[in-house]
Amino acid sequence: MKLPEFTDIEQAHERILPFVHRTPVLSSSTMNRILDCELHFKCENLQKVGAFKFRGAINAVFSLTDEQAANGVCTHSSGNHAAALALAASMRGIPAYIVMPRTAPTIKRQAVEGYGGKITFCEPTLEARETTLANVAVETGAREIHPYTNFNVICGQGTAAKELIEDNGPFDIIMCPVGGGGLLSGTSIATRAMSPKTMIIGAEPEGADDAYRSFHEKKLIPSVNPKTIADGLLTSVGEINFRIIQRKTDEIVTVSERGIVRAMRMIWERMKIIVEPSGAVPLAAILENKFDYRGKKIGIILSGGNVDLEKLPFHEFV
Amino acid sequence: MKLPEFTDIEQAHERILPFVHRTPVLSSSTMNRILDCELHFKCENLQKVGAFKFRGAINAVFSLTDEQAANGVCTHSSGNHAAALALAASMRGIPAYIVMPRTAPTIKRQAVEGYGGKITFCEPTLEARETTLANVAVETGAREIHPYTNFNVICGQGTAAKELIEDNGPFDIIMCPVGGGGLLSGTSIATRAMSPKTMIIGAEPEGADDAYRSFHEKKLIPSVNPKTIADGLLTSVGEINFRIIQRKTDEIVTVSERGIVRAMRMIWERMKIIVEPSGAVPLAAILENKFDYRGKKIGIILSGGNVDLEKLPFHEFV
Repeated sequence: MKLPEFTDIEQAHERILPFVHRTPVLSSSTMNRILDCELHFKCENLQKVGAFKFRGAINAVFSLTDEQAANGVCTHSSGNHAAALALAASMRGIPAYIVMPRTAPTIKRQAVEGYGGKITFCEPTLEARETTLANVAVETGAREIHPYTNFNVICGQGTAAKELIEDNGPFDIIMCPVGGGGLLSGTSIATRAMSPKTMIIGAEPEGADDAYRSFHEKKLIPSVNPKTIADGLLTSVGEINFRIIQRKTDEIVTVSERGIVRAMRMIWERMKIIVEPSGAVPLAAILENKFDYRGKKIGIILSGGNVDLEKLPFHEFV
Repeated sequence: MKLPEFTDIEQAHERILPFVHRTPVLSSSTMNRILDCELHFKCENLQKVGAFKFRGAINAVFSLTDEQAANGVCTHSSGNHAAALALAASMRGIPAYIVMPRTAPTIKRQAVEGYGGKITFCEPTLEARETTLANVAVETGAREIHPYTNFNVICGQGTAAKELIEDNGPFDIIMCPVGGGGLLSGTSIATRAMSPKTMIIGAEPEGADDAYRSFHEKKLIPSVNPKTIADGLLTSVGEINFRIIQRKTDEIVTVSERGIVRAMRMIWERMKIIVEPSGAVPLAAILENKFDYRGKKIGIILSGGNVDLEKLPFHEFV
């Protein structure tokens, strides 16, 4: 597969412009004073479906020819990509078939159903998900849109960094979380092209540190039994995403669970916005002093804001 | 006292421009679809100190002559005005003396202290507050900045509606909550001048409905034992504020406690932003069908986002 370039991200940006929110970039003087740096948060928690994932999904869906799109799209996901793909498909007027583990939280299921997605449940194993998805694809003729190992998804995700740099750049450092690597690979392509001197840092939970280990050992090492409160980052980094990250990303750091909850709470309390644990991971790296951030101007992509208000984690790590 | 006019709000806006956030105006397609209207939320929960109160405080502090400001400012408040005045004073480099009931929540106290305010505690009665404040004013020579019965505070609060109309107007309806009436009086002056056909509606909790009763009986009727989860709206409407509201506001409606919590939860879940109960009161009026909103383009001022994350109310009215 051809690797995406910045011109592909520019084209993606034009394509998705009518559909996405140009999300605000917020900052907090108090946090800047406490942390002795200048933080600019790109609020993708305020994006449609509450996550940056909508950028990739809408770009992928609208990049299909009419023939390719005719029978709809499909994916397996229990998270933000599922909701994003369901909404994107509904905007094009085609069906979205979502394979979900039967253990997926009710609110995730309701989100997908709310956007008109058709759910097929399966056992909560990767094998069951893949087999079920293959069956769904054969039965429906729907086209698979992978959450991150997909050229157009990566280009869509890169548009968040593009807007961030256009609106508040240039930055000394740009940061985002890394799970499958769709956001980090897109962010790295956009940032490297628009602002070559900016340092690009991915942040990952210690309990799901496959991208960190892969990056530092220079070979792809999948996760084994990842465990973290940052449920959007449990997945292993994709092969194409890793190739881009190896070439364009400067550093990957890891953070503790306690750090994630502290960072999440700081964003809620100081910035008055709701961020999910995954979105708080880059700030956690600052709170835990994982790189030289003092005095720097830093752009952070807050990846999403989908949390279950019934199960807030603020007491788990006191 | 001379009543403020729109030119006073324009001057206030220029004065405070270097200090305030021009807060974003957010909307949710899903909420618009569910509610069958077009809602534009002016996010003063993302303002400095997490509330519109900073606009009025900073305008009042920077409207003082050097001589008037020399000994600092003072007020009695246990809420957002206290934090706002403390920050505004620190920006001018003068002290802020805040009289607070000794029963005020720790987080409110910490907010004021965090901005450098000097707190004097008193018994939790209006009489004790007023006596203590009078003593503090005499001892320090500080100038009192009342939370809402103050010309420059009203002008500052009116700048939120001015920005909202400039950025997303014109509207069929503009709404905000009403407590002391600083925000509603400022909003009404700005809206009536900029967009004469726009209907201006204040929303108030049923348990603190003095503005509603005063408005409909055409005379000032103070609250007796107000009780509501919307702790920013417990106070009685001010005399000057009421005079402005009588002349410029079209309607005041009331909402239930259950409606406030439902509206607050909808904003958290759908918009991914943190709004305090007081800020959710206008949306509650829509959820409770208190006026003819269907098909209308409505601007709502989300007044603030200061909640205690330890005491979320989502289970109180299930």
